[in-house]
Amino acid sequence: MSTRRATVVGTGLIGGSIGLALRRRGWHVTGADGVPEVARRALELGALDEVGTDPSAEVTFVATPVHAIADAARAALAAGGGIVTDVGGVKGSIVDAIGDGRFIGGHPMAGSEQDGIDGADPDLFAGAVWVLTPTAATGDDELTRLRTVIGELGADVVALDPHHHDALVAVVSHVPHLTAASLMRLADQRSTEHRALLRLAAGGFRDMTRVASGHPGIWPDICTENRTAIVEVLDGLVASLAEVRDIVAGADRAGLLSVLEQARSARANLPTRLTGAADLAEVRIPVPDRAGVLAEVTTLAGRLDVNIADLEIAHSSEGERGVLILVVEADAAERLRGGLTEQGHRPSVTPLE
Amino acid sequence: MSTRRATVVGTGLIGGSIGLALRRRGWHVTGADGVPEVARRALELGALDEVGTDPSAEVTFVATPVHAIADAARAALAAGGGIVTDVGGVKGSIVDAIGDGRFIGGHPMAGSEQDGIDGADPDLFAGAVWVLTPTAATGDDELTRLRTVIGELGADVVALDPHHHDALVAVVSHVPHLTAASLMRLADQRSTEHRALLRLAAGGFRDMTRVASGHPGIWPDICTENRTAIVEVLDGLVASLAEVRDIVAGADRAGLLSVLEQARSARANLPTRLTGAADLAEVRIPVPDRAGVLAEVTTLAGRLDVNIADLEIAHSSEGERGVLILVVEADAAERLRGGLTEQGHRPSVTPLE
Repeated sequence: MSTRRATVVGTGLIGGSIGLALRRRGWHVTGADGVPEVARRALELGALDEVGTDPSAEVTFVATPVHAIADAARAALAAGGGIVTDVGGVKGSIVDAIGDGRFIGGHPMAGSEQDGIDGADPDLFAGAVWVLTPTAATGDDELTRLRTVIGELGADVVALDPHHHDALVAVVSHVPHLTAASLMRLADQRSTEHRALLRLAAGGFRDMTRVASGHPGIWPDICTENRTAIVEVLDGLVASLAEVRDIVAGADRAGLLSVLEQARSARANLPTRLTGAADLAEVRIPVPDRAGVLAEVTTLAGRLDVNIADLEIAHSSEGERGVLILVVEADAAERLRGGLTEQGHRPSVTPLE
Repeated sequence: MSTRRATVVGTGLIGGSIGLALRRRGWHVTGADGVPEVARRALELGALDEVGTDPSAEVTFVATPVHAIADAARAALAAGGGIVTDVGGVKGSIVDAIGDGRFIGGHPMAGSEQDGIDGADPDLFAGAVWVLTPTAATGDDELTRLRTVIGELGADVVALDPHHHDALVAVVSHVPHLTAASLMRLADQRSTEHRALLRLAAGGFRDMTRVASGHPGIWPDICTENRTAIVEVLDGLVASLAEVRDIVAGADRAGLLSVLEQARSARANLPTRLTGAADLAEVRIPVPDRAGVLAEVTTLAGRLDVNIADLEIAHSSEGERGVLILVVEADAAERLRGGLTEQGHRPSVTPLE
């Protein structure tokens, strides 16, 4: 079996971690960075086999800043025949701009307080969610292969529509980040008058403001590209805080307990990783053999929060129809069947023993 | 030397941790709880020597819920001759209500995700800030002795005026807590429409909402007692988020970078613990031998964020004047001298070698 080959464009924290993880699995990794010494450092740290480009790479990971992704992805598509994906924190505008069946948007939901190549870690993605954003233009074969590669990095793939991804990360990433910065600034401003203030900042405050310690360089791009969703969620948060303010001002003890109980219960129910221990079921979906079906079905599963533990396409001998076989948690199989049926599919569900 | 004796009233997480820490230092600890089986569990876990009350205790720690502190403190003052302190998250109303020279308000800035006696840990206070809120009524001897006991628990004492304490914890604790709950609720509400939302919640979101996983029971008391400060800070946070919203809506990249840089720099400058490596200076302050001077000087140091590494009162042989000797970081000594001079004192500063 010949060595599998990948390219990483942009060898910072994420690109370097991808390189380390792939090389540990035996891949040959070529890489480049806009700042040549960053690529040299990646080579030195073992994240790359060589600096440069590799037209025979089967996958190219574009891990540049958001504003540079579209151009870098187009260059990779023009240079070789492999799959091209990216790791940017916004997806809609990037995916819309590229519109090529070999490009699949991606976003690993993992990071580190240490920026840059020196923070690279081959285990960065272990247990993390890695969003892929296939569209109707996405080739089934490309999507299946990319899912497998990302599984090799230790991540759980969740497929989502690119614009849907952007709406969700505004809630769980972008607005929380801006809120952490606002809390930190507020405390900082008041500490000029009350010097002791920051000395009282204990673990809870440090936890809440930790993300504000990251390098701000990526945020102007993200906030520009995902402006509409971020503004809408910020408006929602401001309304929610104003509601809490009125509860406190009115000494409404029951109202306050209700708000905090709701938050506590939601926090306790944050999803955990798909475990091998869960009961699984097989969902078989007869599908026409056309591009985009796999994107449609996997993004539906993503939207319904149905984890796909395994995925296979069985092509019929006639080549015009096939069967898509998904393995999912048994609890979620009926939910997926309902969604598929609404979209006109005729799925069958079989529990696995 | 006879065994030192303490009482703990309320043997939950904080009271139990105090018991464990004191017993490890050789103290005899008696304790009680409003729920008898909680006190029995504290005994079983080694946080107490016996269940009950101890009129000969030199210190009583009141670690009940906030609404029960004043009554429990008054009962302890009536029952024995020792110092009485508490651990409540608000101080102004409690200290005002008690007004006894043997009662000194306290607030250890430490906690745990695990509520209750089973989360008790003798190292809970190691390296934590423990606020004391002496007033003009506080006895110098009581304050000096309590500082020493709390130092034995591993904490750094910061003395603050009780109402000043309340204004500061609104910024670094109370409002961040309510904000974490609001972020968690917002995500939860939107996850009913977008099931995949919470699956995308990665480390940053989990860090920011961690405090929302705590038991909400203590918050109605805290928000009632510290209502004015909390409402004022919530108004400030809402204004700050509205400013960020306008920056994002206007695609003001420079404005956004400026906000995030300010937050990052402030986060990087969060104070760390007083280290033995710092250069120290001795500040000698001739003081009239009257109650309340030590409270005045230590709360001034707290307000100016001057750490007191050591403290001693040298009484003159005439008994009417004395000298208060503080050891502080050399960098901060001039700041303290300035504040003392403004208050009419005549301090002298000597670097320590």
